[in-house]
Amino acid sequence: MDVSLSIGQFELVYNALSLTLATMFGSGIFFFAARSQVAPKYRLALIISGVVVFIAGYHYFRIFESWAAAFVLKDGAYVPSGIAFNEAYRYADWLITVPLLLIELVAVLGLSRAQSSSLITRLTVAAVAMLALGYPGEISSHAGTRWIFWTLSMVPFLYILNILFGQLTKTVANEGGEVRKRLAEARNLIVLSWWVYPVAFILPMIGFSGATAEVGLQVGYSIADLTAKALYGVFIYRLARAKSEAEGYRLEGAAAAA
Amino acid sequence: MDVSLSIGQFELVYNALSLTLATMFGSGIFFFAARSQVAPKYRLALIISGVVVFIAGYHYFRIFESWAAAFVLKDGAYVPSGIAFNEAYRYADWLITVPLLLIELVAVLGLSRAQSSSLITRLTVAAVAMLALGYPGEISSHAGTRWIFWTLSMVPFLYILNILFGQLTKTVANEGGEVRKRLAEARNLIVLSWWVYPVAFILPMIGFSGATAEVGLQVGYSIADLTAKALYGVFIYRLARAKSEAEGYRLEGAAAAA
Repeated sequence: MDVSLSIGQFELVYNALSLTLATMFGSGIFFFAARSQVAPKYRLALIISGVVVFIAGYHYFRIFESWAAAFVLKDGAYVPSGIAFNEAYRYADWLITVPLLLIELVAVLGLSRAQSSSLITRLTVAAVAMLALGYPGEISSHAGTRWIFWTLSMVPFLYILNILFGQLTKTVANEGGEVRKRLAEARNLIVLSWWVYPVAFILPMIGFSGATAEVGLQVGYSIADLTAKALYGVFIYRLARAKSEAEGYRLEGAAAAA
Repeated sequence: MDVSLSIGQFELVYNALSLTLATMFGSGIFFFAARSQVAPKYRLALIISGVVVFIAGYHYFRIFESWAAAFVLKDGAYVPSGIAFNEAYRYADWLITVPLLLIELVAVLGLSRAQSSSLITRLTVAAVAMLALGYPGEISSHAGTRWIFWTLSMVPFLYILNILFGQLTKTVANEGGEVRKRLAEARNLIVLSWWVYPVAFILPMIGFSGATAEVGLQVGYSIADLTAKALYGVFIYRLARAKSEAEGYRLEGAAAAA
């Protein structure tokens, strides 16, 4: 990182990373503990939610440490310490968690084994292609290079969103009541939250200068990860609850009281 | 380690070790949580899967720290810091986890107690011999010494693969449907992933020079461990799920709804 930051800029990212770290581990504990609240066939989705945010929590811990080591306070500003900020943690994280997020969604839809398996294969291949094409742009500070890899990466990105939107809209149409509402909610969250990533990526290319672009990128990715992992996991939980209830699953105490 | 690395080479290994560490702990949480998804008689295999990857996660944490301490950035390259990189962590890890991986497989096959016990004894003795014979070669930088111990170590290695392949092929023939598919999948994964270890070992002996050989060895072992421990655990989970279903085990909610 070759930029110098004001104290406020440095601290904004520092605190955003810490908040994200806390939310990831906190939501992970929730997803594990809450799996008893849904029918056993939907518990796998909650387990995967928990694994995703724990892995993200680990990476935010590393990103936080790397951010703190990359700058040093000098004459009232944070200047580069000489130790490079490690951008690769985010991509390592996404390489593991994006396929898991897609599997988590497929697991909660309750499709046939053949349908699930075909969806997971296509989505995973596209996710790996999306990240592999994005990374060379991410580590470049040259706007032209960033645009080329952003554009290439957007092809599998749009492919994934198109499949998810199509599949979810089809599934929404087959459901009623609470399940339909929760499904539509999860679909809208995915489609909206995923767009934060490519938008944060282009900040340095659309006129934002060094420090502002860097801060925007880090805060943007943190918000995107919070939404696409932790909040998304909560939506998956609500969907799993609604499906469990619609299918006649009663919590032990509730059954006794009825 | 007497080699100097480019920044890219150092970071490739650094990030591969971090990604492996995250995957080991993440998959460990998954195996423990997911044991409720399989019939009780197959849960031991998932518990052992979880123990294996947690132990591996601990060792990858140590290997990651040792890698970071072994080099220091100087004039745009990573040069030896004077603190030796500890190769012994990998062998300590394998000494504990390889016998467990073999027990995990035997546990999920559901053989008779006499058969299981005979298999486990033979495989464990062979695994310890394989590692004890490989280690003196691993810590040597002399190609001749490496070849001698590699060759000696390959004897128990081939003995283990031969037993596993024979036993699994016999078991595959007795099964049908989903279980047969999952068993064949697990057998093929073992036979393929195990070969990465001896191939990574010989990189320094077949013309790869200092830095390239070292990076190839570290990344190769990481990929081998990811495949032979975490991915293998997922295959064991899928096999245990298929066997549970084939034997009439239904998840609680599914059974109540039926």
